[in-house]
Amino acid sequence: MQNLLIIGAGRSATVLINYILEQARQYNFFVTVADADLSLAQQKVHGHANGRAIWLDASKPTDRKDIINRHDVIVSLLPPQMHLDVAQDCIVLGKHMVTASYVSKQVFRLGDEARQRALVFMNELGLDPGIDHMSAMQRIHQIKAKGGKITAFYSYTGGLVAPESDDNPWHYKFSWNPRNVVLAGQGTAQFLEDNKLKYIPYRRLFRQYRIVNIPNMGEFEVYANRDSLLYRDAYGLTDIKTLFRGTIRHRGFCDAWNALVRIGLTDATFPIVDSDQLTYHDLMEAFLGISQHTGSVKDRVAKMIETEPDGEIMKKLEWLGLFSKRRIKLKNATPSLILENLLLEKWALGPQEKDMVIMQHVFEYELNRKKKKLTSTLIMKGNNGSDTAMSKLVGLPLGIFVKLLLLGKISTTGVNIPTMPEVYEPVMQELAEYGVQFIEEEE
Amino acid sequence: MQNLLIIGAGRSATVLINYILEQARQYNFFVTVADADLSLAQQKVHGHANGRAIWLDASKPTDRKDIINRHDVIVSLLPPQMHLDVAQDCIVLGKHMVTASYVSKQVFRLGDEARQRALVFMNELGLDPGIDHMSAMQRIHQIKAKGGKITAFYSYTGGLVAPESDDNPWHYKFSWNPRNVVLAGQGTAQFLEDNKLKYIPYRRLFRQYRIVNIPNMGEFEVYANRDSLLYRDAYGLTDIKTLFRGTIRHRGFCDAWNALVRIGLTDATFPIVDSDQLTYHDLMEAFLGISQHTGSVKDRVAKMIETEPDGEIMKKLEWLGLFSKRRIKLKNATPSLILENLLLEKWALGPQEKDMVIMQHVFEYELNRKKKKLTSTLIMKGNNGSDTAMSKLVGLPLGIFVKLLLLGKISTTGVNIPTMPEVYEPVMQELAEYGVQFIEEEE
Repeated sequence: MQNLLIIGAGRSATVLINYILEQARQYNFFVTVADADLSLAQQKVHGHANGRAIWLDASKPTDRKDIINRHDVIVSLLPPQMHLDVAQDCIVLGKHMVTASYVSKQVFRLGDEARQRALVFMNELGLDPGIDHMSAMQRIHQIKAKGGKITAFYSYTGGLVAPESDDNPWHYKFSWNPRNVVLAGQGTAQFLEDNKLKYIPYRRLFRQYRIVNIPNMGEFEVYANRDSLLYRDAYGLTDIKTLFRGTIRHRGFCDAWNALVRIGLTDATFPIVDSDQLTYHDLMEAFLGISQHTGSVKDRVAKMIETEPDGEIMKKLEWLGLFSKRRIKLKNATPSLILENLLLEKWALGPQEKDMVIMQHVFEYELNRKKKKLTSTLIMKGNNGSDTAMSKLVGLPLGIFVKLLLLGKISTTGVNIPTMPEVYEPVMQELAEYGVQFIEEEE
Repeated sequence: MQNLLIIGAGRSATVLINYILEQARQYNFFVTVADADLSLAQQKVHGHANGRAIWLDASKPTDRKDIINRHDVIVSLLPPQMHLDVAQDCIVLGKHMVTASYVSKQVFRLGDEARQRALVFMNELGLDPGIDHMSAMQRIHQIKAKGGKITAFYSYTGGLVAPESDDNPWHYKFSWNPRNVVLAGQGTAQFLEDNKLKYIPYRRLFRQYRIVNIPNMGEFEVYANRDSLLYRDAYGLTDIKTLFRGTIRHRGFCDAWNALVRIGLTDATFPIVDSDQLTYHDLMEAFLGISQHTGSVKDRVAKMIETEPDGEIMKKLEWLGLFSKRRIKLKNATPSLILENLLLEKWALGPQEKDMVIMQHVFEYELNRKKKKLTSTLIMKGNNGSDTAMSKLVGLPLGIFVKLLLLGKISTTGVNIPTMPEVYEPVMQELAEYGVQFIEEEE
């Protein structure tokens, strides 16, 4: 019997646990779910014969090592900064390790040691990162196999609300981590365009969006992701001229989000002293800074961000309640936390509402001296507010990969992301059974 | 004989060392100057009978403690993050300590221990912070003494170039740390206006400047300092309605600097890969991001920052050489480091050129039911590129205070900034002998 340990039983664990427990009897797996909240782990295992829930404070090295040592494969769903501790334990104790998170530099540096010990350390096995890598690599290898030379690659992903549940002026609801949405893009985005490096600082990120057309869905906006260049080598696209990765939002989102950025509401660097004594209206007034204009706070904000006082952008801000005399509920909170808290309420995905994930890859390539273009699009909707497309698309690839690993079907050792056929072929094939299918268009 | 130790013999040490060595024979002081560069320390002591230079690597605890233990008063001119080590040594060894730097939270927490041991830990004894505190407190105490109630306090400081040496379109040259100038204002400025907290994020800081009139000098621009509120309690201005501290620049500076900020050139968060392979022109092109406009890079930058292609702002950018085909000399440098390096060359204060420091305090107060306004202005020019007003105004207060402390004239123990009469009275009085005199206007 193969023993699997899943550390962390939070929201992102549900689909993975359900999937692997479904497979457990057939393949003779035993699944331990460890969490600092024992009842949460118990709830997720729900008495399955091939599973058990245990209590673990993963920050305690002795406890952590002890439990890791009694398993064959370790999945870490801990907060990203804790993966390194688990990875080091896995090196010492000779265990395989799997995560859905970005590979940190520190974990990356363990690659040689993992390879020497014949250990598989696979990461970025969710949706984005995850399915984006696997679906892109599948097509990149196909194009290369028939002799094509890829000149441009664009890749976009968005976790959105499905049209039938879209009833707010922002056309957005949360299907995943709200904090990541609020802080998205801080820093400087980098990408490659026509063989030249391009930089977009945060202050221009939500202004310089592209318009993309999604089959049967119409136009969307895409803003640049921070790290497009990181994948040039990982994808084997060393000579590519254009490489751009971005995030998909509904039309109108970026301009309105840019207004929140301009006002200062996404700032996470300082606390608003006694913020619980302020109303949202007071907060907006505080951001007006030195009084240059007269009129209502709303009109002065519109002037400050150079937009029409009665236009679409101001309507979206008003709908959020940013000019209301309601008290802010958080004490000494940063502007971004105050915003997150407000959005959590306004952008909640209801129990009967559906989310929607869109992923699109565009490959421009040359084949037999002809210019070709391949567009590959995934559109997937959730069933309801708990059984979301997002949770499936994050959890299933992880589950399928873990199954393959437990069955001894993975031979790529070291620290990796899923770019190799032995991973993406079986994972994408099984994902298709769950409705994860890309629509392809060739030009 | 009283023994003084000065740790650090860099640029900010010269005036202090000269001043205290001048006083040393008369008052029987002995001055040790310690630096990791022995020849630098020797050069500053220049064989004075009451001084000596020693080699010290202040990062080595044993060496540092050993030398601290053989002195009575310790001046730390080390980089700010190293003051805490020195302060902890001084607590353990029972030594007084003096710095020109901002009090860090960690050093602030040593206050009780310092007081219990009857030790003087005085900080912020330069120009800004330093003379600003002392000159302001002198007037605040005077106004309060005659029964006045201060309702508003504005305080501005600028290290500038003197009009007779001002020969560039930016009307600015470096008289102090260039890095601080390039990174100035990152974060969110906070101040109090009419009893309301106000926030100005970095992206609006150089747009929302005030115009101030300096007697005999004309109009200047003032942008908000990050920390105006920190001094509300320290200055005893708990009930004040308006409190604003800012930095003075020549007219036209803020709009042009804002252009550099908008482009992204003050970003210190990421390295430009192989920046030594790029020209300044390439760098500007990279910041254009997704191509939305056609035309020359210069014209596209002008459009991006929404300014006239032939206007004053673009002229200033062009004068810096930002559109030239010259190679950048630094490898893998951040945008802000590339900018700093360019400005170091363009904004150098020549050996025969003069700097100028301007400081202005404006107090609005009520006295006998009448509204009053006191404006207090300091204008001081340097003699040449080495003997600058800036170096005098940073070094002299430190020197005068150290003399007072060595002579046993300071009784305020604990961690403090110079807000008390026993410090500011004698320091400001002696500074006046060096030409540091404020012009007062009453309305």
